[in-house]
Amino acid sequence: MDVKTIIGFSAGILTAISSIPQIIKILKDKKAQAVSPLMFFVLLVGNLLWCWYGVMLNDLPITLTNGFSTICDILMIILNYKYSKK
Amino acid sequence: MDVKTIIGFSAGILTAISSIPQIIKILKDKKAQAVSPLMFFVLLVGNLLWCWYGVMLNDLPITLTNGFSTICDILMIILNYKYSKK
Repeated sequence: MDVKTIIGFSAGILTAISSIPQIIKILKDKKAQAVSPLMFFVLLVGNLLWCWYGVMLNDLPITLTNGFSTICDILMIILNYKYSKK
Repeated sequence: MDVKTIIGFSAGILTAISSIPQIIKILKDKKAQAVSPLMFFVLLVGNLLWCWYGVMLNDLPITLTNGFSTICDILMIILNYKYSKK
């Protein structure tokens, strides 16, 4: 694996896992009032487009890590909907 | 501009602007309790690495949009620090 791929995967893994502390915090506090749901809809579309871009460039770091981010975005939208109703 | 570049810029602009509703919401509500500060530190490092990756690939969409995201991340960290102290 070359340096370029390592940088790409490191970047992708960090931006992908950045949603995880947010998900844990919402699950723990059981509130989502200060979290904007619009942010995660915009992110969802953005991450889906990054996946498409990664496929077009035949670039694994972009495709795989944005695929994971897309799943996190969907989870955040569900949690935000669930806890903002309380 | 070819289709690939348009997809890349659309993806990057969406993921970059996804912080803006969050920034506006925090400025309006003047509270950041439900927003995890750890998320933005991880995002900051991730976006900086994406910039580096974009430079290595000589890819303008990746470099420019992650440069903008980096600025947003720094702003979010400052706001989160400011409003979580209240």
